[in-house]
Amino acid sequence: MILLRRLLGDALRQQRLAQERTLRDVSAGARVSLGYLSEVERGQKEASSELLSSICDALGVQLSTVLREVSDELHVLESVGSSPAVVPMAGVTHASTARTVDHQVIAAA
Amino acid sequence: MILLRRLLGDALRQQRLAQERTLRDVSAGARVSLGYLSEVERGQKEASSELLSSICDALGVQLSTVLREVSDELHVLESVGSSPAVVPMAGVTHASTARTVDHQVIAAA
Repeated sequence: MILLRRLLGDALRQQRLAQERTLRDVSAGARVSLGYLSEVERGQKEASSELLSSICDALGVQLSTVLREVSDELHVLESVGSSPAVVPMAGVTHASTARTVDHQVIAAA
Repeated sequence: MILLRRLLGDALRQQRLAQERTLRDVSAGARVSLGYLSEVERGQKEASSELLSSICDALGVQLSTVLREVSDELHVLESVGSSPAVVPMAGVTHASTARTVDHQVIAAA
């Protein structure tokens, strides 16, 4: 399962790193403990709506911008996850398809 | 402050109503209590990432689609919040603008 808090945490961390700012700096601006912000960034804690707004304010980015990034990223991940493991193409034999499936099963094990 | 959980709740409720489904039906599909789903829809409870995924699964919509809607809606609200309440257009008289504002106030009352 793709978890929203992981993608949100990644997006928030990327914003912070792009601005070359520290956890200490942003956590102070957002009035949240450094440890909590770190857990949010790592997708280990769900940020409340209020905290999300505060973090975005501290970063000087709009929440809608962060959500758009997350939505785009999630859309890509959903597409990868929902597509068939093997899509036989015209001209591909069943034997070839079967080998591909075996390979993927091994790779996933 | 525009709260993400309110916009998310609205988007989830709209999806459910567009499908003409009941809280009971969707809550059963998402394995969450009817009361909790109702509170999430009304923006009174933060849904965990896992619960959000379950609700979207029960609704048969992708979370990325819901997030995109929320992001678009939030972007509009952020723009409104940061711009003047009334933006007079070229050729529009003050009296006309005032009537429009009055009308909106009446409509919102």
